[in-house]
Amino acid sequence: MYCGSSTLSKPKVSIIGVGPGSSDWVSPASLTAIEQSDWIIGWELDFKPLGKLPDGKRIIFQTCADYKQIIEKTALEAFSAHASIAILKTGDPLIAPAGLEDLKRIFNKFDMRIIPGISTIQLTAAKVPVSLSDCQIFTYHPLPHDGGRDLRLKRKRMVFALERGFNLLVLTGVRQSPKQTASFLIHAGIDNRTPCLVCQNPGQLQETITRCSLEKLTNLNFDWQSVLVVINGKSPFKASACNP
Amino acid sequence: MYCGSSTLSKPKVSIIGVGPGSSDWVSPASLTAIEQSDWIIGWELDFKPLGKLPDGKRIIFQTCADYKQIIEKTALEAFSAHASIAILKTGDPLIAPAGLEDLKRIFNKFDMRIIPGISTIQLTAAKVPVSLSDCQIFTYHPLPHDGGRDLRLKRKRMVFALERGFNLLVLTGVRQSPKQTASFLIHAGIDNRTPCLVCQNPGQLQETITRCSLEKLTNLNFDWQSVLVVINGKSPFKASACNP
Repeated sequence: MYCGSSTLSKPKVSIIGVGPGSSDWVSPASLTAIEQSDWIIGWELDFKPLGKLPDGKRIIFQTCADYKQIIEKTALEAFSAHASIAILKTGDPLIAPAGLEDLKRIFNKFDMRIIPGISTIQLTAAKVPVSLSDCQIFTYHPLPHDGGRDLRLKRKRMVFALERGFNLLVLTGVRQSPKQTASFLIHAGIDNRTPCLVCQNPGQLQETITRCSLEKLTNLNFDWQSVLVVINGKSPFKASACNP
Repeated sequence: MYCGSSTLSKPKVSIIGVGPGSSDWVSPASLTAIEQSDWIIGWELDFKPLGKLPDGKRIIFQTCADYKQIIEKTALEAFSAHASIAILKTGDPLIAPAGLEDLKRIFNKFDMRIIPGISTIQLTAAKVPVSLSDCQIFTYHPLPHDGGRDLRLKRKRMVFALERGFNLLVLTGVRQSPKQTASFLIHAGIDNRTPCLVCQNPGQLQETITRCSLEKLTNLNFDWQSVLVVINGKSPFKASACNP
């Protein structure tokens, strides 16, 4: 006879990728996971791909003022109420490590699962196109306030990845623009003629594609919701960004 | 007045990711792209996530005997007939570079676009969980018959990625099993106690998860549809595969 286990009695938290911003990219798996949850939490932007707010659920919005505190508060309340939680994430929750690590700590008494989503990284790689296995992914969103330690690690990894023949896929953050990345790479000795592609607002109505050199990029401004591809001539996979 | 361009008159080919194998992961964007195409081509396995064959389309199956020739033949026929083609790909077309490069060559007279899908790589990373920006992705599917050149490059990249603190996400192929990868890594000097996770048949009913050391892995057999994660203790993102 099956007697159950303590794992079964834990409340559930699902971290759900809802894709880059339109309903076109929300998988049935993500919709089912939302339907199976009691409370739904996210930024207003994270609810946008759903079209409308889910019926019959407690909806909790994160804002700039309280986005960290409200997650901690909700976790405590949900644990007491044994409520299941869906945490919505634009794109794919697997792209932003800092957020994921925080959630693992906050929900350590919950049964946690992650539902991947289509990311802006994938949409942008598809425009070049480059294979993800010939790329190194970087995210500046969020970039932690740690005196620049995380940024220095990522920049070291970038130069290294280019030297090893990889393309770079860089998710822009509010504190690091494609312009800043381009300036750094040129300063670090990367050829200023290196071809790049920037997809601004990937998957949204106002999506734009810019193809130019690293040098040209140092003079261009983009929305914080952009992905930069630095295309490596040495990659065994021939990218075609300069031959559209 | 808008007068059109030669680009507009090219026939269209869409390379469409349909996710890891069940309808749960097929995005509305992929379904729309299939609906907008005249001919649909893929392996029998690639049609499985759709549940049933799309109505009112010419359906072309690839098989072991003719999978390359039939793509070339279909491209020629479709160009003459000005038919739009959907090429279905299990998972995400951006994961397998060799296939993508061939398609770019074969369909060079077409207007090509890629619709990303959820990959088994993402489903497996979600099980650990590890962030994709702390991983290097490898695929042995397909592994070209090139005297081992591609395999040697990938193995060199693997040791390198581990030394630099990355986790490895390795898509198994028929010619390279997790066991072979584990044996190679131990031989190359990687600690045989390094924690690993294997997701066999990700996203399918018969999905299984195995957590063990690199050493243990050298004695285990898995289906060719498996993803291996080699978890790097040095990664700044603390993975939890050994603390389920």
